[in-house]
Amino acid sequence: MTDKITLAHGAGGEQMDSFIKKIILKHLSQNIKNVEIPLSMLDDSSVIDDIVFSTDSHTVQPLFFPGGDIGSLSVAGTINDISVMGAKPIALSSGFIIEEGFSFDLIDKIVKSMATSAKQAKVPIITGDTKVVEHGAIQELMMNTSGIGKRTKVLDENIKTVKRYRTFSQRWLLDSNLQPGDAIILSGTIGDHGIALMSYREGYGFETKVKSDVAPLNHLIESTLKVGGVVAAKDPTRGGLANTVNEFSEKSNYQIILEEEKIPISKGVHAACDMLGLDPFHIGNEGKVVLGVVKEKAEEILAEMKKHPLGKKASIIGTVGDKKGYVVMQTKIGGRCIISKPIGDPIPRIC
Amino acid sequence: MTDKITLAHGAGGEQMDSFIKKIILKHLSQNIKNVEIPLSMLDDSSVIDDIVFSTDSHTVQPLFFPGGDIGSLSVAGTINDISVMGAKPIALSSGFIIEEGFSFDLIDKIVKSMATSAKQAKVPIITGDTKVVEHGAIQELMMNTSGIGKRTKVLDENIKTVKRYRTFSQRWLLDSNLQPGDAIILSGTIGDHGIALMSYREGYGFETKVKSDVAPLNHLIESTLKVGGVVAAKDPTRGGLANTVNEFSEKSNYQIILEEEKIPISKGVHAACDMLGLDPFHIGNEGKVVLGVVKEKAEEILAEMKKHPLGKKASIIGTVGDKKGYVVMQTKIGGRCIISKPIGDPIPRIC
Repeated sequence: MTDKITLAHGAGGEQMDSFIKKIILKHLSQNIKNVEIPLSMLDDSSVIDDIVFSTDSHTVQPLFFPGGDIGSLSVAGTINDISVMGAKPIALSSGFIIEEGFSFDLIDKIVKSMATSAKQAKVPIITGDTKVVEHGAIQELMMNTSGIGKRTKVLDENIKTVKRYRTFSQRWLLDSNLQPGDAIILSGTIGDHGIALMSYREGYGFETKVKSDVAPLNHLIESTLKVGGVVAAKDPTRGGLANTVNEFSEKSNYQIILEEEKIPISKGVHAACDMLGLDPFHIGNEGKVVLGVVKEKAEEILAEMKKHPLGKKASIIGTVGDKKGYVVMQTKIGGRCIISKPIGDPIPRIC
Repeated sequence: MTDKITLAHGAGGEQMDSFIKKIILKHLSQNIKNVEIPLSMLDDSSVIDDIVFSTDSHTVQPLFFPGGDIGSLSVAGTINDISVMGAKPIALSSGFIIEEGFSFDLIDKIVKSMATSAKQAKVPIITGDTKVVEHGAIQELMMNTSGIGKRTKVLDENIKTVKRYRTFSQRWLLDSNLQPGDAIILSGTIGDHGIALMSYREGYGFETKVKSDVAPLNHLIESTLKVGGVVAAKDPTRGGLANTVNEFSEKSNYQIILEEEKIPISKGVHAACDMLGLDPFHIGNEGKVVLGVVKEKAEEILAEMKKHPLGKKASIIGTVGDKKGYVVMQTKIGGRCIISKPIGDPIPRIC
């Protein structure tokens, strides 16, 4: 590890992992009795006294992009981090840091966009903070959204369903909950957010076809909990699908076997990745969820997801193996390859 | 209002007020039935389902200053915003935005300082997020801390005590709770944080005498609730004591009468303000609280505060009058002057 922070330390891959463990957890891991899901589990949110609590800072550039803006992104991001724990998000905060000289019209547009997303998700923004810094101290505007969520009967019922099919001692959807035989479901195409951002930024032209998938997933995830049998959930943001399935595999301590031909990728993303030499598995998404579910309920959950506008292209993309180890993928041409976590970030500043 | 954001829009005074009302509240005010204390009340925190929720972004420069650093500041700031609602803070989040090239040693120091403050306050940091942006996109490091707090029996008992002395229908300590005859108590000297920062930054030399007062006040505030009779509380951060008492006065709709000679100011702050032409009433504090209490309990609360290390210089600084109107101050030489909210910020980037 060098003695300076690099972009890779914030990129959601292996270097970030190491940074978080060496600096953040070293000081902040405490054994507090009523913290049920602590920071050290490095899941999407933490849980204390049955309150799910999550935070996310947003540094996306440009602030407005095809399919969304920093406002919709921040609302969706925090709602999704709470929802993937199985909780119902009930309130958000917003903290702005704004560069002196920034336009009133643009901040108005951003706040309006936050309000629209929050209304769509039915989660109010109830508290906020605004700081203004001098010209040059920050690039335009960066922000933080934190959120709180609560346990619901829907989650309790889902947990009961899981127990009907296999041993299950957890109360929340955790990355570490997977067991051999569980199915992995992805809610739709991957790579759209990162490719839309990069393409728009660099003027590649793919942005006419590819739009960010930014969306709050609380209602989609809740609909799967109503079916029952969901054991784990994660939104494949920084580090992409590759990072998400590796987190599942590492924390559950089982191999995950993906099938390449089952993973939905749009033509535009495919073309952009081909041209730019990018791996769509490493690219961040902002409106997708990856579920681990008991195999007996997989088809029923899939059918339910396909009814929802945000889950139309959902697909069962793999299963949990019974050995310890890596994430492997059966390729379209019949081979097998290892899917590892990205080291750095192929496209910075997308969230 | 101009069409560009200026530093004054984040300074905690009148321009910020107007900005928040015109942009933030316009879009984000929603009537959600279980939001007991909504954003639109512009109190220190909001309340939903008996959960107190607050957020604060931190842009202080320099990151390390006499008496503290951005880590201790962020922890104390959020704990204090929750505590002044009368709630017990139970958990914090931390969200970092770091400039590429920032030193590992310094981030280690900052996180360690957060851990120390969190342990002192007995409030764990349970969730976090880290973003790294390219060199020049942010000045060194900025961060957000959000926090959640819960209702306790101590608050319930305090509310009952208030009701013994006068009509009181609220469940929380709110800026709008003051009534004629209530006493205003300040927990200690004002101006220390802002003067320490400015003096250190500009090399004036006062920093040898003046240190930031940054401190988590949850235990001090809890001790006053145990005495009973507390109706309102606020930490005089951005905008200083002048802003705090004006918020009390505006929201409660009563005059507040302060006594100049009762307001504690250290010699160092006094000297610095004299030399620099600053008004200590406008300077931000990070370890002080202003209470509104029923007059019958004022002396007892004051005595209790003086027992606490953070309340040794506490003082009854004024009373709530029975007319609508301004904050007025009886000066040492026998005159009266109006204390108004600061327009801009005499010392930027102190929090």
